[in-house]
Amino acid sequence: MIRKILIIGGVAGGASAAARLRRNSEEDQIIMFEKGPHVSFSNCSLPYHLSGIIKEAEDLVLMNPELFLKQYNIDARVNNEVIAIDRKNKSVIVKNILSGQNYTETYDKLILSPGASPIVPNIPGMENVKVFTIRNVVDIDKLNKFVKQIKLKDIAVIGGGFIGVEVAENLRKAEYNVTLIEGTDQVLRPYDYDMVQIFHKEIVDKGIDLILEDTVIKFEENKVILSSGRKVDANVVVMAIGVSPETRLAKDSGIEIGVTGAIKVDKNYQTNDPDVYAVGDAIEVYHALTHTMTKLSLAGPAQKEARAVADHINNKSTLNKGYIGSSAIEVFDYNGAATGLNESIIKLLDLKVNYDVVRVILTDKVGIMPGAAPMHFKLLFEVPTGKILGAQAIGKGDVTKRIDVIATTIKFGGTLEDLKDVELCYAPQFSTAKDIVNYAGYVGTNLLNKEFKQVNVDKVRELVESNRFIVDVREQGEFAGGHIKGATNIPLSELRERINEIPKDKPVYIHCRTGQRSYNAVLVLQNLGFHNVYNIAGSFLGLSFYEYYNDLRLQRERIVTEYNFR
Amino acid sequence: MIRKILIIGGVAGGASAAARLRRNSEEDQIIMFEKGPHVSFSNCSLPYHLSGIIKEAEDLVLMNPELFLKQYNIDARVNNEVIAIDRKNKSVIVKNILSGQNYTETYDKLILSPGASPIVPNIPGMENVKVFTIRNVVDIDKLNKFVKQIKLKDIAVIGGGFIGVEVAENLRKAEYNVTLIEGTDQVLRPYDYDMVQIFHKEIVDKGIDLILEDTVIKFEENKVILSSGRKVDANVVVMAIGVSPETRLAKDSGIEIGVTGAIKVDKNYQTNDPDVYAVGDAIEVYHALTHTMTKLSLAGPAQKEARAVADHINNKSTLNKGYIGSSAIEVFDYNGAATGLNESIIKLLDLKVNYDVVRVILTDKVGIMPGAAPMHFKLLFEVPTGKILGAQAIGKGDVTKRIDVIATTIKFGGTLEDLKDVELCYAPQFSTAKDIVNYAGYVGTNLLNKEFKQVNVDKVRELVESNRFIVDVREQGEFAGGHIKGATNIPLSELRERINEIPKDKPVYIHCRTGQRSYNAVLVLQNLGFHNVYNIAGSFLGLSFYEYYNDLRLQRERIVTEYNFR
Repeated sequence: MIRKILIIGGVAGGASAAARLRRNSEEDQIIMFEKGPHVSFSNCSLPYHLSGIIKEAEDLVLMNPELFLKQYNIDARVNNEVIAIDRKNKSVIVKNILSGQNYTETYDKLILSPGASPIVPNIPGMENVKVFTIRNVVDIDKLNKFVKQIKLKDIAVIGGGFIGVEVAENLRKAEYNVTLIEGTDQVLRPYDYDMVQIFHKEIVDKGIDLILEDTVIKFEENKVILSSGRKVDANVVVMAIGVSPETRLAKDSGIEIGVTGAIKVDKNYQTNDPDVYAVGDAIEVYHALTHTMTKLSLAGPAQKEARAVADHINNKSTLNKGYIGSSAIEVFDYNGAATGLNESIIKLLDLKVNYDVVRVILTDKVGIMPGAAPMHFKLLFEVPTGKILGAQAIGKGDVTKRIDVIATTIKFGGTLEDLKDVELCYAPQFSTAKDIVNYAGYVGTNLLNKEFKQVNVDKVRELVESNRFIVDVREQGEFAGGHIKGATNIPLSELRERINEIPKDKPVYIHCRTGQRSYNAVLVLQNLGFHNVYNIAGSFLGLSFYEYYNDLRLQRERIVTEYNFR
Repeated sequence: MIRKILIIGGVAGGASAAARLRRNSEEDQIIMFEKGPHVSFSNCSLPYHLSGIIKEAEDLVLMNPELFLKQYNIDARVNNEVIAIDRKNKSVIVKNILSGQNYTETYDKLILSPGASPIVPNIPGMENVKVFTIRNVVDIDKLNKFVKQIKLKDIAVIGGGFIGVEVAENLRKAEYNVTLIEGTDQVLRPYDYDMVQIFHKEIVDKGIDLILEDTVIKFEENKVILSSGRKVDANVVVMAIGVSPETRLAKDSGIEIGVTGAIKVDKNYQTNDPDVYAVGDAIEVYHALTHTMTKLSLAGPAQKEARAVADHINNKSTLNKGYIGSSAIEVFDYNGAATGLNESIIKLLDLKVNYDVVRVILTDKVGIMPGAAPMHFKLLFEVPTGKILGAQAIGKGDVTKRIDVIATTIKFGGTLEDLKDVELCYAPQFSTAKDIVNYAGYVGTNLLNKEFKQVNVDKVRELVESNRFIVDVREQGEFAGGHIKGATNIPLSELRERINEIPKDKPVYIHCRTGQRSYNAVLVLQNLGFHNVYNIAGSFLGLSFYEYYNDLRLQRERIVTEYNFR
């Protein structure tokens, strides 16, 4: 049976579905409609055109309609917008944008992959500034050409999500004066507040003016006016506060919308109409860890969904195990990766999950190899099962591989014991013999077994303010280079002989540079009968990153004599 | 109860055991004997001193006895060699190498971590050359100082394992004339013959004289004489043909030796004497995939074993799930990583495992991002279960992260379906939205479902010699830049209209550059009624690498007009 399959949208989801449909069947008629002029471009690479990392805008386009036709016998119609779906007659109305003419195409199966569009709120004075949004090659080309010709190089980026941060970074690399404005107290929600401070520091260190907890109330002539009263110069404004799934076509034709406002689909990505499938940023998917429906604007899942749809149409069985949302980002010299749950999601969704947190720092390769740098790692696990729930890693080195291992472990329902045990590839230029993943497994198991107690760096200010007994077990020279105000310096190497300096009758909080020596010190004390001892997770290095930007932003008194970021 | 625990050997296994023992108990007396002058040095980093990547030999030493004492209260005795074990009296005889004096220490528990020593065969004429082996900091320092002062810069490295290749590479980087001599037909056994050719090419391209399938029969004055009759100039010879577990102490004291010739241990790394444990390169471990005992000279497992022993001594339960042997190596511009089974191990051990192979090539990041390069990937899976058995990856980019994901998957007994499904961290500078790991899962599933057939690049010479019908579906320009002799060029983009040029009555072999277009072509043909169609796994890029060095070495006629390595 030869079928006619229509696809609405020609980027990640649509193009993947089309190619897989053709591999499954040589006979089916496959038509892909894209309202823009390009199909199959690299969405996630768009911001890199602004810095010139990707020189030509056209390089962002990976395939063209001619190749789709010749290589795959797929009719890819760019500049053709589907404006209505008639489910009763199994047809769509298409507007040829160039000719202005409308026409009808019937279908046996219809796949919706319309994506999500940037949200542009109605802010007074919009006419006073040049506002851009970024969704496709045309948008980025337009923005890039515009900024190239402006004389005053002040640009405001509104929104601190992936796109906002990447656009700000690439514009900054191209030497614009960039202000990044975010309404909440942090950028990049996949990272918890304690971890994200590393990015905050990097963003301001690289010369971006980062404004948090402030919102745009209006625009004046080349100015953004914030609710704090602050006025930000902006010859260009990039609006990146978020995206909204494209659901109009679906809604208008009676396709069901889910709880998140995105298109509702079943296990096989079928909508309430079994001849209509939907994939990509326009749909909601099942989150395997929160057990709720969620919107994921990620390319990997879109491609996986598309393939599943093409297979389902061809009667091949597919699995749907839900999603956990793995992602990665580069912020100047730092890389970040995250997967699964983080503490903010747990709070936001009020998830009834009993968890604890490992927060460790280890070099990403053997310390004596060139380029070795500390990696900051945070792992969430379920109590008392030890089941891995999520992780975040930030550092100058290869963080994605560590989070990929965690994502794989989560997939299999793995535990802390599994992380201890997993055999990773080791050579001194790639990792350490005991990788941070193994190390996190060890620390987590010790926590789960209550072999020691910890407090996180975000609690240290409180400790200092309430005059708690903090012991810094680094060597004297390290202490001199910056330390917590009021901390007592007893190097690990002198701990046993100076044990009398530590009180037994009150809580003791111990740190070193990264947490390894202090962990040893905690155990020494516990083994010697001290029972109220805490390791400061994140230690002095983590604390320096944690405090730096907040001290700057809130203009508050430091709790350390000097930060130390090495 | 205060115990006295002695440890023989102070590198990876010994030092890790000592530190963990102290964390477990503050009271135990812990003495670590090391016959050399250093404890706790970075074994795997030794070769990098030769190129100056690690400038000072002393940088290789990570800890010293003073620090062990002060930080961990561990008595680390360097230059102290244990020369006998008296199990009946639970004591050891130790020789202080500096004073020449022997003394006795008793123990409650004894941990053997003596490592493995380089094998130096008895080859005639040894006195005619300056022979070095590499095991520790003293060795590498000695070699480095010697080569720095020689006038004639010819060095022969004998043995193509990890150490041989890394030593050859680092000496070459320091601009010596290096000959690497290996007795078998390939270096680096964790990589199969088809994959390792990429390394062979890189080794010769970077100016090392690589000699395979040849052995040393004698040495003459600054010359190595090979069984082929070849004479190799060598002012220095580095012997790296392999290592032998240090079992003398164990044997002499009646500790049981296993089938591989290494020390036999149980699940908890206890020897036949429950008060004597053994870890590291001196022991044999259970291979979770071959189900046999094996010797692993890897730092990660040594550390894991050491920790398990320290925990077992302290009545903590530990798991032993066997090992799969993950490893990584850098060979000039190429990185390699491998885990689990490969085809040579299966053949060598005559394992009764029914398996098939995925061989794919994909860029390591989005093609338009700077530095994107092809990654060569080989995956072994069990038939018919799809269970993952092993993988190898070689490329200029981040291969270790892909093999880490496979190693994690193997740990959980995962299958091809799991690889399809795993959600990895994606951003265009780190990977592709569908990563090569997912892609290999898809290809493997298709193979398992018999949706297409394949032959590997190592069979192409046979195909050419027997005049098989080979179709090159790359574009004309690509074909002109180098192709298989006798192949018919029908670009994928012209395939449907030129279908009549392809015979239906004989087998058809299809390739493109990396295998993606040819896979599409295979499906087109199959869907159009051709039933004897094969995809050439590895495609033209893989073929070029596969043939290059063998053509050079065997001085045989090329089966391609020109290689193409891009």
